[in-house]
Amino acid sequence: MTEPFDAVDVIRAKRDREVLGNEQIDWVIDAYTRGVVADEQMSALAMAIFLNGMTRSEIARWTNAMINSGERMDFSALGKPTADKHSTGGVGDKITLPLAPLVAVFGVAVPQLSGRGLGHTGGTLDKLESIPGWRAQLSNEEIMDQLRDVGAVICAAGSGLAPADKKLYALRDTTSTVECVPLIASSIMSKKIAEGTDSLVLDVKVGSGAFMKNLENARELARTMVDLGADAGVRTVALLTDMSTPLGLTAGNALEVRESVEVLAGGGPADVVELTLALAREMLESAGRPDADPEAALRDGRAMDAWNAMIRAQGGDPDAPLPVARHTETVTARASGVLTRLDAYDVGIAAWRLGAGRSRKEDPVQAVAGVEIHAKPGDTVSAGQPLLTLHTDTPERFTRALEALAGAFDIGGTLEEPRSIVLDRLANDVVPRGLRTTETGGAR
Amino acid sequence: MTEPFDAVDVIRAKRDREVLGNEQIDWVIDAYTRGVVADEQMSALAMAIFLNGMTRSEIARWTNAMINSGERMDFSALGKPTADKHSTGGVGDKITLPLAPLVAVFGVAVPQLSGRGLGHTGGTLDKLESIPGWRAQLSNEEIMDQLRDVGAVICAAGSGLAPADKKLYALRDTTSTVECVPLIASSIMSKKIAEGTDSLVLDVKVGSGAFMKNLENARELARTMVDLGADAGVRTVALLTDMSTPLGLTAGNALEVRESVEVLAGGGPADVVELTLALAREMLESAGRPDADPEAALRDGRAMDAWNAMIRAQGGDPDAPLPVARHTETVTARASGVLTRLDAYDVGIAAWRLGAGRSRKEDPVQAVAGVEIHAKPGDTVSAGQPLLTLHTDTPERFTRALEALAGAFDIGGTLEEPRSIVLDRLANDVVPRGLRTTETGGAR
Repeated sequence: MTEPFDAVDVIRAKRDREVLGNEQIDWVIDAYTRGVVADEQMSALAMAIFLNGMTRSEIARWTNAMINSGERMDFSALGKPTADKHSTGGVGDKITLPLAPLVAVFGVAVPQLSGRGLGHTGGTLDKLESIPGWRAQLSNEEIMDQLRDVGAVICAAGSGLAPADKKLYALRDTTSTVECVPLIASSIMSKKIAEGTDSLVLDVKVGSGAFMKNLENARELARTMVDLGADAGVRTVALLTDMSTPLGLTAGNALEVRESVEVLAGGGPADVVELTLALAREMLESAGRPDADPEAALRDGRAMDAWNAMIRAQGGDPDAPLPVARHTETVTARASGVLTRLDAYDVGIAAWRLGAGRSRKEDPVQAVAGVEIHAKPGDTVSAGQPLLTLHTDTPERFTRALEALAGAFDIGGTLEEPRSIVLDRLANDVVPRGLRTTETGGAR
Repeated sequence: MTEPFDAVDVIRAKRDREVLGNEQIDWVIDAYTRGVVADEQMSALAMAIFLNGMTRSEIARWTNAMINSGERMDFSALGKPTADKHSTGGVGDKITLPLAPLVAVFGVAVPQLSGRGLGHTGGTLDKLESIPGWRAQLSNEEIMDQLRDVGAVICAAGSGLAPADKKLYALRDTTSTVECVPLIASSIMSKKIAEGTDSLVLDVKVGSGAFMKNLENARELARTMVDLGADAGVRTVALLTDMSTPLGLTAGNALEVRESVEVLAGGGPADVVELTLALAREMLESAGRPDADPEAALRDGRAMDAWNAMIRAQGGDPDAPLPVARHTETVTARASGVLTRLDAYDVGIAAWRLGAGRSRKEDPVQAVAGVEIHAKPGDTVSAGQPLLTLHTDTPERFTRALEALAGAFDIGGTLEEPRSIVLDRLANDVVPRGLRTTETGGAR
């Protein structure tokens, strides 16, 4: 036995509310990556962390150990600033699609390594795969080339980046250890730090459709991630944004691509445009482009040009028609009045059950499946008027999707004060590498 | 997907401190036995149970589900009462060896399905296997025959009995989810109830050498098991007994067999005799033999005859010499005075490291390894006098065994009031099947 620790002791320590030592954390992550710590041991440890927590310094060490489990990317050879964005996941959250090309318009490299949907929240790669020909898998060299030539890339994270996190992420999903600040924060930040971006903007969702149901938990998650960014020298800004109702008017893969293209064409739903611009401004500011005008770039076609270039660079045809569902079903208003609530979680579950998401990693998704929204909270509706259209290729899925929507709306009652999408903002004071003064103190 | 539940939901419910439903419990145990619930899911659930607990009725249902995972034995065809004993495990706890034949002397069937040692506590089967020729594996038919002819049998539990418990027990050992009342109680009681005994006496150990370090936890465990016995119609008595110092003067396999034979010959250490008689009286009382005199049976050779018959029936030669260690090392007193403490856990770890126990299920044990004790708390010792003799066939093991003993004794200081071995007693009021009045109300 040449291992310096035994997993049983590490689990017991956390179970008994002890603070794990640095060497214990380094070892358990490394040994889990090597397969010496078994899945059933890591899941017991994850549950103990879920219920007993971790200190700030345990989380930092845990994050670092996950970074060290794999390779680190380095974009400094590009000669331009890099900015990345991460969303904690919501319903109808297609913002990455218009955002990445929009920011790239201003000479900022946007390396958007993304994931697939699991559970009721959609996955960026699943959405883009509804575009004929588009491929998610790129080599590191292809990523660099595309960042240099196009500026934006949205692709799958390579298997070399934080492999410990990949293994743990899949494990947490099947063991009910997902909604836990230390594990969420370290998972997100290990990938983003390993990816080597200079600056990072986090979209931390709050509300029924998000992992964090209330502002307090979301703020704790945001604070933890912003601090982890500071430890790693990555400029990190977190916007806390509303996810009590779906973002935009669509939830589903091809449906969300269509809506994203509308935004890039200068139109689209007001909330999607507002959040896209808010995140773009943060990314541009962090990347040293405070004077950039992203609103103009949406209006004048530059963002759309960048989108077309980005899709084509990955084999996609931006002009090809998107697939359309063979079956639809309409949900209508039962009464007349003001729509006071449209629940994000319920709509997410419905879209998922229609085929837009997967129950298990290996399940396929339907490009066409999802929910189209015809009225948002604050709108006045009349009885019989369509509220939602459900889309799927497999009509036997309608029943369970409709069940999910049984309590999804309120008509009448009191409308909550319309709140801004952006609820709060946290940031660290790291100066991104590309903007740092030289060591002798002079500005570049 | 034809499963009525998803493990993720069951884990989440317990994680969030909900009470699990009966159907959820039945399903999760059954699905785990079938391999549909994965080890990493069950270990996360076990940790959530460890940290959030289970209600009395959850524990009862969990126990029942484990019983239903396998076969149930039935000894009613024997035409004599059955009594069984279980110890929660301690250091030097060889009581089963003299106890089973002693109780059988009085016409009570003692089906003692036992386990192997894991960690610092010894295993009854490991001890008996130091007798040349003795075998632990018997068929159900052999068990019945031996109970009829000899009255006592100590053997391995067949794989058909509570297979869910077997799987979960091994899992808990590697995931730090052992020392948890609901899981310990349901594990013990599911096996004992499935085994079909009429009455059960539990020896619940308390102290450094036991899983339960304090009386309060031990009482909770005892109460839980006595209640589970009541639910299943099994007369159950629990004695809480001291395990702060080793029982008797030996810890190790062949060493403990030798001491057990001394007790059966009418001698042996006072504490071993006291506990053997206390448990025998409870078993005999429960089995309808309140007037039996076990002390006489130790004195007059009847218990030894039953032992010899029991060992021979399982292929063992009770007259063959027991194996002896090739190497010994003596630990002497550093000062003169009263020995005020000899720690059970430390001695257990030393015996284990000498080779008496195993780290992993598949490890072999040394029959000869262990610790011989020359002075017990309350004895006056002189500097240089031998306190312990360590036995092993592999002398390189002495170093780590001696390390375990570094803080095992106190000489001088204050001696705790010598307490009785039996600290408390709990019982349910079930009348064992063999002693029940008939349905028309008359006594048998």
